[in-house]
Amino acid sequence: MPHPGNPVTRSLTRVLADVRAQDHPGRVADYIPELSRADPEAFAISAASVSGHTYAAGDSTTLFTIQSISKAFVYALVLSEHGADAVTARVGVEPSGEAFNAVSFDDRGRPHNPLVNAGAIVTTSLVPGASAEERFARIRRGLSAFAGRDLDCDETVAASESATGDRNRALAMLARSSGALTEPVDDVVEAYFRQCALRVDTTDIAVMGATLAGDGINPRTGERVVPPAVARDTLSVMASCGMYDRSGQWLFEVGMPAKSGVGGGIVAVAPGEYGIGVFSPPLDAVGNSARGVATLRTLSQEFGLHLFRHPERPASPVQAIDVEPGGTVVIRLRGMLDFVAAEQVAHLTAYGPETTADATTRVVLDVSAVTASTRVAARLLADVAAELRLQGRDIVLVDPDGVIDIA
Amino acid sequence: MPHPGNPVTRSLTRVLADVRAQDHPGRVADYIPELSRADPEAFAISAASVSGHTYAAGDSTTLFTIQSISKAFVYALVLSEHGADAVTARVGVEPSGEAFNAVSFDDRGRPHNPLVNAGAIVTTSLVPGASAEERFARIRRGLSAFAGRDLDCDETVAASESATGDRNRALAMLARSSGALTEPVDDVVEAYFRQCALRVDTTDIAVMGATLAGDGINPRTGERVVPPAVARDTLSVMASCGMYDRSGQWLFEVGMPAKSGVGGGIVAVAPGEYGIGVFSPPLDAVGNSARGVATLRTLSQEFGLHLFRHPERPASPVQAIDVEPGGTVVIRLRGMLDFVAAEQVAHLTAYGPETTADATTRVVLDVSAVTASTRVAARLLADVAAELRLQGRDIVLVDPDGVIDIA
Amino acid sequence: MPHPGNPVTRSLTRVLADVRAQDHPGRVADYIPELSRADPEAFAISAASVSGHTYAAGDSTTLFTIQSISKAFVYALVLSEHGADAVTARVGVEPSGEAFNAVSFDDRGRPHNPLVNAGAIVTTSLVPGASAEERFARIRRGLSAFAGRDLDCDETVAASESATGDRNRALAMLARSSGALTEPVDDVVEAYFRQCALRVDTTDIAVMGATLAGDGINPRTGERVVPPAVARDTLSVMASCGMYDRSGQWLFEVGMPAKSGVGGGIVAVAPGEYGIGVFSPPLDAVGNSARGVATLRTLSQEFGLHLFRHPERPASPVQAIDVEPGGTVVIRLRGMLDFVAAEQVAHLTAYGPETTADATTRVVLDVSAVTASTRVAARLLADVAAELRLQGRDIVLVDPDGVIDIA
Amino acid sequence: MPHPGNPVTRSLTRVLADVRAQDHPGRVADYIPELSRADPEAFAISAASVSGHTYAAGDSTTLFTIQSISKAFVYALVLSEHGADAVTARVGVEPSGEAFNAVSFDDRGRPHNPLVNAGAIVTTSLVPGASAEERFARIRRGLSAFAGRDLDCDETVAASESATGDRNRALAMLARSSGALTEPVDDVVEAYFRQCALRVDTTDIAVMGATLAGDGINPRTGERVVPPAVARDTLSVMASCGMYDRSGQWLFEVGMPAKSGVGGGIVAVAPGEYGIGVFSPPLDAVGNSARGVATLRTLSQEFGLHLFRHPERPASPVQAIDVEPGGTVVIRLRGMLDFVAAEQVAHLTAYGPETTADATTRVVLDVSAVTASTRVAARLLADVAAELRLQGRDIVLVDPDGVIDIA
Repeated sequence: MPHPGNPVTRSLTRVLADVRAQDHPGRVADYIPELSRADPEAFAISAASVSGHTYAAGDSTTLFTIQSISKAFVYALVLSEHGADAVTARVGVEPSGEAFNAVSFDDRGRPHNPLVNAGAIVTTSLVPGASAEERFARIRRGLSAFAGRDLDCDETVAASESATGDRNRALAMLARSSGALTEPVDDVVEAYFRQCALRVDTTDIAVMGATLAGDGINPRTGERVVPPAVARDTLSVMASCGMYDRSGQWLFEVGMPAKSGVGGGIVAVAPGEYGIGVFSPPLDAVGNSARGVATLRTLSQEFGLHLFRHPERPASPVQAIDVEPGGTVVIRLRGMLDFVAAEQVAHLTAYGPETTADATTRVVLDVSAVTASTRVAARLLADVAAELRLQGRDIVLVDPDGVIDIA
Repeated sequence: MPHPGNPVTRSLTRVLADVRAQDHPGRVADYIPELSRADPEAFAISAASVSGHTYAAGDSTTLFTIQSISKAFVYALVLSEHGADAVTARVGVEPSGEAFNAVSFDDRGRPHNPLVNAGAIVTTSLVPGASAEERFARIRRGLSAFAGRDLDCDETVAASESATGDRNRALAMLARSSGALTEPVDDVVEAYFRQCALRVDTTDIAVMGATLAGDGINPRTGERVVPPAVARDTLSVMASCGMYDRSGQWLFEVGMPAKSGVGGGIVAVAPGEYGIGVFSPPLDAVGNSARGVATLRTLSQEFGLHLFRHPERPASPVQAIDVEPGGTVVIRLRGMLDFVAAEQVAHLTAYGPETTADATTRVVLDVSAVTASTRVAARLLADVAAELRLQGRDIVLVDPDGVIDIA
Repeated sequence: MPHPGNPVTRSLTRVLADVRAQDHPGRVADYIPELSRADPEAFAISAASVSGHTYAAGDSTTLFTIQSISKAFVYALVLSEHGADAVTARVGVEPSGEAFNAVSFDDRGRPHNPLVNAGAIVTTSLVPGASAEERFARIRRGLSAFAGRDLDCDETVAASESATGDRNRALAMLARSSGALTEPVDDVVEAYFRQCALRVDTTDIAVMGATLAGDGINPRTGERVVPPAVARDTLSVMASCGMYDRSGQWLFEVGMPAKSGVGGGIVAVAPGEYGIGVFSPPLDAVGNSARGVATLRTLSQEFGLHLFRHPERPASPVQAIDVEPGGTVVIRLRGMLDFVAAEQVAHLTAYGPETTADATTRVVLDVSAVTASTRVAARLLADVAAELRLQGRDIVLVDPDGVIDIA
Repeated sequence: MPHPGNPVTRSLTRVLADVRAQDHPGRVADYIPELSRADPEAFAISAASVSGHTYAAGDSTTLFTIQSISKAFVYALVLSEHGADAVTARVGVEPSGEAFNAVSFDDRGRPHNPLVNAGAIVTTSLVPGASAEERFARIRRGLSAFAGRDLDCDETVAASESATGDRNRALAMLARSSGALTEPVDDVVEAYFRQCALRVDTTDIAVMGATLAGDGINPRTGERVVPPAVARDTLSVMASCGMYDRSGQWLFEVGMPAKSGVGGGIVAVAPGEYGIGVFSPPLDAVGNSARGVATLRTLSQEFGLHLFRHPERPASPVQAIDVEPGGTVVIRLRGMLDFVAAEQVAHLTAYGPETTADATTRVVLDVSAVTASTRVAARLLADVAAELRLQGRDIVLVDPDGVIDIA
């Protein structure tokens, strides 16, 4: 439980109060009676960092159905299962410029992306399972792993969705006729209706988002739920298609990959940093939680969470350069060495500072403080070493943990 | 000039060779004779880091016309001039799902975004200027500031574009009829044709991209060309709309805000890190440089430049926690303090480690090594200090440079 | 059997030979194996006049499946059953500008018209029947009444259509979700697949067309199959929507309400005159029989069957005007008196000739030779009589059969 | 002047009163001030028969600008000038399913049809003329010939249209860029604005319609304004595209080729019979005169003017068959002999009645009462004669006026 007096919690509480004081007209979804009974005044936010800190304010233990938010996470499960090539053969990754329940398919017969209904249904069909029950069981387990706790289904909502779900059945049937769907329509849509009826609170979806923010590792449980590449791909699709035909506006104003649900929830992700969940049932004209959108816009602006915000320059990977007596130059590196970091080292050794390019004949590259290195960074450093040797300098690698592999 | 034997340069050279060896069919644009005369074998790449390092391989000094790449940078100039609200009142920020020269406008009568022709023309109309000449002069100065050198216009290309430019005139006229354009059509489109005919090489567009990557500061000249918020907004639109109706696919595969031009150039941006320019005249079916796309896809994968790649955890802002004899806890912070960093400090002081939450009565917050702080981080730290005082602890701020302002 | 040496038959035979000698490339439908086995060289034409004359040339006894041609006639049956208001509440009458299997519905949730698949399926759903079997039985009886002989279903084709019919099921499901369809999807589409698999030859469809041409009376059997208003409404929809997204071109060039089927048949109607059936399996790019289209174009031009051709002025309804000794004017009318005819009489009596407007005091209106009168014509003649009386003339109606009712 | 007490006039007066008593909400066009000043209560109807009778009721001498009604008649002029092939190479004949000012072109780069603005502008561009003035002068003469009196232009309206005409300029420019328009944009649109500002009353447009109804001959002046084929083609396009995206509904309900104008006028045509003009400025939601539409719907229903109404069977062309002593059969034909009539003769001589098929050896074909014959009818009769001769019968043609040419 977050400490009530925690200053982050107080900030979130203040944002809720600010947004509540503004005018954000909306209407609770009423296409099924269960949704229409939601309390329009319920309002909550949770944030979960990739380090495992969680904060919450408002009605953060109120449960609601996950609805379309599930689409992003089932997509991640399916990418893990089959790989991006197999999945994109069936579902595109392009914003459609159309509403969530649009019937259009792309010129390859694929739904435009996994976040419109047609694409979500095809995505659900790719979850292995011999029946709707098996398929759903697997989805429930997968989404529970994202949330870090056992989620359950609101069967009344699922039944009501099924009773009014002809349009989704039609989309499934269209997908079958175009070849994007190969499973029996009823099996798939029944699993889909139950997937959408999973019950979550804002902290659940914040943790789900944080799992994507943290490359697929659930910060609450420490479990790797999906591989890093899947987290990356899922965030990409959320960034371009997550808010339907307002996705461009959302990326411009809020700048976080996100996905909303008709139950009033929205998950947003600050990659590498946070998952954020908001909840307020009244929806705006395009079907996103009106107060939820306003809350995330405020958070993004006030807390600098926009993807393209003034970015902090990462600390230089070069911790220190010491010129020792006798002309030996010692370069100490630290932290994670990726291409960006390795390029800085390469540049440094090639062009300066004066001391390094100079008469020095011996270079010591000390990577004791390096925690990890990407393949490309290691290769680049190997090139640097080779280059220095060509220039007639003596190069020594200090790498007690063997984190990098320079031949 | 980059050192030929530089290992980064060698990497780029190898990527060019790899892509050249693959089959990427394309056709040089031939709607005007000037473009059709481009050498189909010309192929180049340049990269410019926000620290001012530049690398290049291939025909990186070959000049070509900037064409639609200019749209992103003129948009940035116009955002600087009028602010985002005034500009988005005239041009949307939503991908249109349509071709670059589509005639559709949104339901508010705006072109969908500044990177389709209609939107680019409206954007150019927002550049102050009493005539096509004045408008163009201002654009040329602005784009030269982005490139860090004086760009000039290929007047033959501009004249030829003008001679065949009826569709663009029609788009301008449509924008006038919808109210998005208020300037005389001919003044605007003539400036637009000349803007598109500015001559650049790959290093120019790499530096232009690096200027956006670096929050608006040109890494070559050190000049602030646009404010950070404008760089952020421009990158947002490039991310969602930059590659026309393949923007979602591009974000998925390459994950860098980008913009292509019919002359064969593409600029891509790794925010906070690099601008990259590629050039190869033959275009694929949707009008992007075929080899250029392949090159950037390879670079992104090999060098880990995808926006949502496995992100490096930033170094902790907490440099050290020392428990001094007598129970005084000294927390030393460093680097840039933003919300993410401040939240870590807040969490630390609230929940642990043992030593801090303990019987200590005195906390020293040493920010001597902090280089800057955002407003929200400062506020959060102030809250932390207030909280600690409420808990009866003595708190001391060590801030010799006054970088943060805790009341 | 038409007399082989009949000159009309010889004309039709010549048209077939002319068209066969021309190049009209096409492809036999192959989405189900049964259709792909059609003989591409089969070629036939039949014409049936509203007087009951039939002519035929080519393979006019070869049976083929009626396919989409059935849509027009089932629409007529449904209009008869429920009236135009009830039917147009569910299916529009507007050309959609789209392909036959388009998924779009109008802004009232209706399929655009009954001749695209979605609209045809909704139309079939309006045929009364507690099951697919009952519904189909009724359709079969109705279409047999149009053809004047008992049609049967090619059950192999129907089964194959059903096996590949997911898109039609999807259209049905979409129609359910928009409220246009209220019956169970499977019941409706199975009836629809069998309706499309009814076997006909060109003479059958010519007679079906002649039944519409003759206001709903089958010229072969003399049976009234549908009321005149239904024939009119059906022809209207065939005129505007019958040839899908080439309907305007068709009305321009051929000028006959028509409907094609993927089996290679086309029915065309010269209202008041003929039904024409053609058959040739290879289809053009938009799915109409390539030779069939060419044949009808030729027929329309050569035989003057265009709806807006130089029209014959109908014979004057005024058979004779006799001025008898003593100034009595006798006006003898004949044939069918509609508004157009009555207006001529009204004009005549009001303005001339000299003799009638003159000093005559007595007018005899002799309608012995009038075969029928519309309500509006009768009213207009009553007005004429009243007018003449107001002018102080004596008016006598000679109407032994009481065909008109002048108070 | 029509006689006020004429019963047809009284019928029209009653229809106006009936429609006025109903609720047909509408709004006077106000995109230019001149149109907004129209009297919303002005209401008129005129009918002109192809025989030259005219009737009128209401404010039938009130002048209004012809606006889009002009499109149909300028199209007719252009078809006369260049022929249908040359014209349809530039402008299609397909309903677009879109609004009058839509920007879409077909896949051949043509505006969809001549009755949407883009197509009308291209049509106007095909009127010969070295300048806007020359072009307009020719249009004014042509439309005056249709109306049978000298029409003049409301220059204030034309100037106002020009001042607000950017969308039309944009459409023209788009047409230039697609190759459909080759003339200078300004020349064309200025002529177009003046064409739309020609002043007419309802009787003028009724006579214009009657000229199309009567195959191109103005019933007021007797002048042939356009050839029969042009009248046919123009009516075809009016039937499929005349009422924009309600054309299907209009053909279904009203069944007359028609064209409306934003000034409140509508022209409708009963081919072979009448032209009808109505006028009432308030427009419905799709831009057609609200009361005008209601008036024409009423007229069509009450007066049986629907294109596919229960059609009168034309009087048999066979006036009499006399079997003379000695077995000679005399067949007397009358009126206009077209294919339909000739087919009846052919059928009669081939199959009966008994008397003709019998032992008769001599047939006299008396065409003294035939007024004209089409080529195909003449050929068919020649075939009949040849057939009879083959059967060994003696055939005699009585044709004092040489109306048919039987070799």
